[in-house]
Amino acid sequence: MTTSTPKRIRFNAFTMCSPVHYSPGLWRHPRDNAVRYKDLSYWTELAKTLEAGLFDGIFFADGIGVNDVFGGDYKAAVRHAAQVPKNDPLMLIAAMAAVTENLGFCATATMSYEPPFLLARRLSTLDHLTRGRIGWNIVTGYYDSGARAMGHGGIASRDQRYEAAEDYMELVYKLWEGSWEDGSVLLDQETGFYADPDKVHRIRHDGPHFRCDAIHMSEPSPQRTPVLFQAGSSDRGRDFAARHAECVFIGGPTPRTIAPIVADIRHRAVLAGRDQADILFFMGLTVIVGHTAEEARAKFDEYAAYVNYEGALALFSGWTGIDFSGHDPDAPLAASLNDASSSSMIDSFTRIDPDRVWTLREVVAHNAIGGRGPVIIGDPETVADEIEAWVRDTGIDGFNLAYAITPGGYREFIELVVPVLQRRGRFKTSYDPGTLREKLRGSGRRLLADPHPGAGFRHLPTHINKD
Amino acid sequence: MTTSTPKRIRFNAFTMCSPVHYSPGLWRHPRDNAVRYKDLSYWTELAKTLEAGLFDGIFFADGIGVNDVFGGDYKAAVRHAAQVPKNDPLMLIAAMAAVTENLGFCATATMSYEPPFLLARRLSTLDHLTRGRIGWNIVTGYYDSGARAMGHGGIASRDQRYEAAEDYMELVYKLWEGSWEDGSVLLDQETGFYADPDKVHRIRHDGPHFRCDAIHMSEPSPQRTPVLFQAGSSDRGRDFAARHAECVFIGGPTPRTIAPIVADIRHRAVLAGRDQADILFFMGLTVIVGHTAEEARAKFDEYAAYVNYEGALALFSGWTGIDFSGHDPDAPLAASLNDASSSSMIDSFTRIDPDRVWTLREVVAHNAIGGRGPVIIGDPETVADEIEAWVRDTGIDGFNLAYAITPGGYREFIELVVPVLQRRGRFKTSYDPGTLREKLRGSGRRLLADPHPGAGFRHLPTHINKD
Repeated sequence: MTTSTPKRIRFNAFTMCSPVHYSPGLWRHPRDNAVRYKDLSYWTELAKTLEAGLFDGIFFADGIGVNDVFGGDYKAAVRHAAQVPKNDPLMLIAAMAAVTENLGFCATATMSYEPPFLLARRLSTLDHLTRGRIGWNIVTGYYDSGARAMGHGGIASRDQRYEAAEDYMELVYKLWEGSWEDGSVLLDQETGFYADPDKVHRIRHDGPHFRCDAIHMSEPSPQRTPVLFQAGSSDRGRDFAARHAECVFIGGPTPRTIAPIVADIRHRAVLAGRDQADILFFMGLTVIVGHTAEEARAKFDEYAAYVNYEGALALFSGWTGIDFSGHDPDAPLAASLNDASSSSMIDSFTRIDPDRVWTLREVVAHNAIGGRGPVIIGDPETVADEIEAWVRDTGIDGFNLAYAITPGGYREFIELVVPVLQRRGRFKTSYDPGTLREKLRGSGRRLLADPHPGAGFRHLPTHINKD
Repeated sequence: MTTSTPKRIRFNAFTMCSPVHYSPGLWRHPRDNAVRYKDLSYWTELAKTLEAGLFDGIFFADGIGVNDVFGGDYKAAVRHAAQVPKNDPLMLIAAMAAVTENLGFCATATMSYEPPFLLARRLSTLDHLTRGRIGWNIVTGYYDSGARAMGHGGIASRDQRYEAAEDYMELVYKLWEGSWEDGSVLLDQETGFYADPDKVHRIRHDGPHFRCDAIHMSEPSPQRTPVLFQAGSSDRGRDFAARHAECVFIGGPTPRTIAPIVADIRHRAVLAGRDQADILFFMGLTVIVGHTAEEARAKFDEYAAYVNYEGALALFSGWTGIDFSGHDPDAPLAASLNDASSSSMIDSFTRIDPDRVWTLREVVAHNAIGGRGPVIIGDPETVADEIEAWVRDTGIDGFNLAYAITPGGYREFIELVVPVLQRRGRFKTSYDPGTLREKLRGSGRRLLADPHPGAGFRHLPTHINKD
C-alpha cells in the first residue's frame, strides 16, 4: 500500500431563511441570531464568517408550503416557527456575494412551481453577479400544502413530478447551454456589435410538460448551468440524481444507512454513462464542539433545554407524514404505528440504536437538535475523528453543517474543528481559484462536461437551432 | 394669492439590467459603464451614488421577451444589445440595499408569468431585507416574444391581461394584508411562542384566473404591500392605475400630451373612490447637463455620435409595433405609414415639433438618446428651469431619470442640477425617515390606507379567514 493524500472534506453551512431550520425552540437562546433572518446584516455577517473559515458554500434549504401534518393544520408550525415563516433565499444571495469572493451559494428552487424560462434567467443572473458561484438544489416540491398554495388540488405523484422534472431539465439545459454559443458575445468597439446573432439560437422546446420558443435572456454566465445539487433518495430520486446531480445531499442516521445509498447512486451514475466520481456527496450533520468533551456536552444540554417539543413534533410529523398529535408521548413508539413504511421512516430518526424501543418524547428529544442528521458532540479532536470516520465509512465527500445556534455554532466549528482538520490534511488552507464548479471539481471544470446530459445541449443539431 | 412652499420634485434613476436601456450604441462610450451590468460592484456603486445624491429610488424596467419586431426576428436587437441580454433585476436588490439606508427599489415583475404566491413571497422577502424600501412596478407583459418564451401561443389580449391582473392583485393583497394580522408575531420568550396561529389566516382564493389555499409564507414586512407602481396608458391601463397604483410612470414627448393623461388618471382615481393626490406621477426624462449650455450641447453631440441606428430602430420597432426594416430611412415618415394608430405612435416620438415632416433617420437620431421621453440639454439653471416647467405644466410629481451614460450621467446631475433644485426648495436636503411609502407619502403612511382597495383585505370577513 502507498500513502495517498487524504481526501479533503467539504463543508457547506446548511440553513434556511426562517427563524427555525432544524432546532425548534432554539431561537429563544440568547446566543442564537436566527430571528435576525429578516435582516441583511445577519446574512452578510454569516457569509463573511463562513468565508473566513474557508467553507465551500452556504446551502439554503427551502420549500413552498408549510408543515401541516401535525394536528392537520399549520398551527403548531406557526406557533413555533417550525420552518414558517420562510422567506425566499434567492433574494439574499447578491448581498452575501458582494461581501465575499469565494463562498459558494446553493439555493433550493422548486421545479414544480417556478416557470423554467424565468428560473433559468434568475440563476443565470445570479451566476453572473457571483462570478460563477451559484449552485441550484433541484427539488420537485414536497409539501402538499405547497401544491394547494399554488392553486393545485394537491401534490402530483412522485412519478409525475420526476417525469416533469426531466422535461424541465432538458429545457433549462437548452437555455443555459444551447442558446448563446461561446463566442456569441463580441463587445466589438469597431463594428459596434455587442453580440453575433448568428451564434444566438432560439430554443424551440415542445416537451410533454413545458414549451418554449425563445432565446435565453441572459448572455452566457461563468458556469452556464449552475452546479446541480439534488437530494432525492427515493428510487426515482436516485435515478434523477445519477443522471443530473453534480452534488447529492443525503441524510441518514448511521453509516450503515448512508453508505449503501452513496454506493447505489454512484452505481446508477455509471449505468447512466457517467464516472462514479462525477458526483460529490454531502451529508447533513450538526456539530456541538467544546474545548473539552464536558464543555461540549454541557453546551448540548443547555441547548436541549431550549428545544420546543411541539415545534419538533410539527417538523417530525411533516418529515414522516404521520400526524403525531394524538400519540401518547410516553408510549413505545413502534407499537403505535402499524405501517411498515412509517416505521422505517421512524427508524431513520432513532439513529445509532435502532433496536431500542423508543417513546415519541425520546425520539423528539434525541432529534430536535440536528433534525434528520446525526449530531456530533465533543472536543475538537473527537469531532474531527468522527467526521473522518463518517467519510471513511460512507464514501461521502463532505457535509452540510446544520446549526443549533447561529452563527455561533459556525464560529466555534471554524475556531476549534477546522484547524484540527487542516492539520490532518483534511481541510483546505486556502480557496482554489475559479468558479464553484472549479473549486469543487478542479481547475478547468468551469462548465458541465461530457458525459453529463446537460453538456449534450451545448451544440444543438441545426434543426433545433435554426432561427 | 399666497406664497406656498413649492412642491418637492422626486427623482428615481431609471435603468434596466442590460447593456442598453434607452441609448443603443452608447455602451461603447469610454465613460459608459453599462456593460458592467453583470457586475455587482457596478450596482452597489450606483446605489451609493444615488443615495449620496438623495435620489428617491432606482426604478428597474424589465420585460420577459425580446424586441423582435424589426426584421421579424431578434437579430438586430441582439447585435446591438437593444434590451437583450437582460438579467433579472430582483436578484440585484439585496446587494444595493446592503450598502444604502434610504434609497428605494422599484422592480418590474410581470404578472402574466410570475406565479402570484411566489411573487408575493419574493417581494415580502425584499421588503424585509430592505426594511421597507420596495416598490413593485406592475406589468402584465408586453412582448409577444415573452408569451412564446413562456410556452404560450402568443400574448393574451390587453383586456384579458387586465382581467387576470385584477384577480392577481386580489390574491396578492389577501396574502400581504390579510394572512398575518398585526400582532400575530409574538416572539414570546416566556411561552416560547413565535407567532399566534389564531391570528394567521389561510387565504382561500378561487378566482377566475388564480387559485390559492394557503397562509402567506412571510411574516408581515414593514410595508406589507410594496409601493405599487404602474405604467399602463391604455384605457384599461388607466383604470387599473386609478384603482391600484400609488405611483404612475408616464411617458410622452410634450406637456400637452402628458398633462391630460395625468388629469385623466387622477379623475378616474376619484371615480374609484380615492383621493386624486393618492397617486404620484413620474415622467421619463433624460438630462444632459454641462457647466454651460455649450458644454452640454457638445456632450450631447458627442454621445449622439455613438448612437447605433439599427439598434435604435430595433427598440423603435418594438415600441411602435411597426417593422421599420423595409423603410427608406430618408423618405418622409408619415407617407410611408397608412395606419392612423401607427402614425399617432410615431407622433409621440417626434416630440416638440409634431407638424414637421420627419424622416425615419431623423426620428431615430432625435430619439435614440432618451427613448420615449424628452431630453433636456443645458446648463444647470436651464435644466432646473425646464424641470420645473414640466412639473408646472403637467401636474407630475417627479421623474424617472434615464441615462445616456451611466453612472456618469447621474453623477453630473447630482453635482450640477441637484444643488440648483435644492436652492429653489424643489429637492430635499435629507431623506425623510421611514419606509419608501412614508418617504413618498409622509410620516405614518407605512401601509396602504383606505380607500386603497388593497387595504380592504386587511380585515377579511370571517368566512374567508376561517381556517
